Amino acid sequence: MTIATTRDDVIVNCLPLSDDERRAFVEAANGVEQVFVGDPAERDAMSWSIRVPDELRERATVIIGNVPAAQMAQYPNLKWLQTWSAGVDAYLAPGVLDPSVVVTNASGAYGQSVSEHLFAMMWALMKNLPQYRDSQQRNEWRDAGAVISPSDATVLVIGTGDIGSHFATMCRGVGARTMGARRNPNKTAKGIDSMHGFDELDELLPQADVVALIVPSTPDTHHLLDGRRLALLKPGAIVLNAGRGDAIDPDALLANLDRLRGAGLDVTEPEPLPSDSPLWSHPRCLITPHVAGGNHLSATVDRIIAIARDNVANYTTGVPLRNMVRR
Amino acid sequence: MTIATTRDDVIVNCLPLSDDERRAFVEAANGVEQVFVGDPAERDAMSWSIRVPDELRERATVIIGNVPAAQMAQYPNLKWLQTWSAGVDAYLAPGVLDPSVVVTNASGAYGQSVSEHLFAMMWALMKNLPQYRDSQQRNEWRDAGAVISPSDATVLVIGTGDIGSHFATMCRGVGARTMGARRNPNKTAKGIDSMHGFDELDELLPQADVVALIVPSTPDTHHLLDGRRLALLKPGAIVLNAGRGDAIDPDALLANLDRLRGAGLDVTEPEPLPSDSPLWSHPRCLITPHVAGGNHLSATVDRIIAIARDNVANYTTGVPLRNMVRR
Repeated sequence: MTIATTRDDVIVNCLPLSDDERRAFVEAANGVEQVFVGDPAERDAMSWSIRVPDELRERATVIIGNVPAAQMAQYPNLKWLQTWSAGVDAYLAPGVLDPSVVVTNASGAYGQSVSEHLFAMMWALMKNLPQYRDSQQRNEWRDAGAVISPSDATVLVIGTGDIGSHFATMCRGVGARTMGARRNPNKTAKGIDSMHGFDELDELLPQADVVALIVPSTPDTHHLLDGRRLALLKPGAIVLNAGRGDAIDPDALLANLDRLRGAGLDVTEPEPLPSDSPLWSHPRCLITPHVAGGNHLSATVDRIIAIARDNVANYTTGVPLRNMVRR
Repeated sequence: MTIATTRDDVIVNCLPLSDDERRAFVEAANGVEQVFVGDPAERDAMSWSIRVPDELRERATVIIGNVPAAQMAQYPNLKWLQTWSAGVDAYLAPGVLDPSVVVTNASGAYGQSVSEHLFAMMWALMKNLPQYRDSQQRNEWRDAGAVISPSDATVLVIGTGDIGSHFATMCRGVGARTMGARRNPNKTAKGIDSMHGFDELDELLPQADVVALIVPSTPDTHHLLDGRRLALLKPGAIVLNAGRGDAIDPDALLANLDRLRGAGLDVTEPEPLPSDSPLWSHPRCLITPHVAGGNHLSATVDRIIAIARDNVANYTTGVPLRNMVRR
């Protein structure tokens, strides 16, 4: 759909842009007023801050950036919100935005960074790198034993959207066989050799050498890997999670870790992982602090900027917006 | 070449074989006497032991296994040595073997395991996994900053034999551009986009995001990466070494590490790395104890066994041996 532009339009652009990129956004805006409030110094930061001067909040009709949901009421004239995140749950909650406000997101920008992070964690666990890092802390030259390879592994990807599909493609590229599980198994996904429904999980789990979870947090996915399902895993299997932390029951994972090769968790339940969680010190658990999907990879940032810039051009020329989430 | 078999031939097979594999070797031997002295329990061990009963040493005409070079004099009737290693330097040294003894090795068996280990170290350093493991040791949920991707990286592979070629192919599979450096640049290698001579290293090093060393220890390769050459590297570059430790000057590496993204070392100078080496505790140095090329990957072991079994069949049927190193 398109949104009518008006003479009073003001685009508040919170992206951390370079001078060249600002010029490209000015061009994309086709004469519509655009105010740049992003800080290029934050470019590589995990998340970007929002600093919109008070006088702009009333005037803003378009925002590019993730204004805190609790502050949305300060933007009474908003028509369109372009987020730099893929997730927009906070904005879709009742009462946050007027139903007339169009929301577009940055879906597609994060597939590479999250899937690469999962891939790196998988390789590290296969080659005992966490154990070697632990030995290194003790200045100890010590063999950690047998390794495995993805070249003869079966990888089960639970949640086969942009990220899951990208991860499966990487695994297939190094020789793995890939199985996918998604709500609607009739929908195929690139990189997945065989697609299955969530109702087949109990048959799939015992076949997998690697299980990667990239599911959103919904009532359906809460503790999707519970004690019963973790017990179905092969001895020596690897579990990876870069979706939402609550897809795995942490107590059940801890109880199963000794018989697994390892777990690579970029997300945990709760988050941050409490400092007294026994998962921190389990040698088979590799933990990263929810960094796979941030803005740490320059290619991700470039994609977010490209989506937003395309949409500014679409908006000002009456072309339907990309990545529409609502309306 | 072929070696004449005789009625007195005795093959001493030191491989850690399963019962099925022993049967396959018996078949391959075509009636030639073969004594199995390997221990299947050592299968996944980093290295395998040699336990040949005294009375067999005199009779052995063929050995499959790496008998310590210092003990070779105890095998006066040896005609052929099939090693399970790729390197055979110790056996080629003057006075170790009678010049008439044929030597074949397991070259080709280790390409996958060493290149995969290099690949895993590269990904870990790109995604800050050593730093996250360090934070984990302190139960600390802490962001380690920007990451990089091989998808837009230039990888320089120094030493483009079986391992280097395999590693380059893996890097290209995830989007990297690959440059190779070898003694004879007119010889191409799979996975290498552009091949160069060692004399071009000074021009190549400033272009590389990743430099992987897989060179043997020779006078030419001693401290190939010295202080002068390390200073040519881009800020934020990654250095990997899985060839011989002395290809990098360790003091010069330490002096350069702060401006690099990191170093992944499976080999060091000297080995084992002394417990007082400052490399152990440098946050940007990831150390593994010369494990990339051992027998920790089942596919490697399978390949070693396949080479030896083929050669036993070749030997007993008068077909030229594979992997001939001398004669």
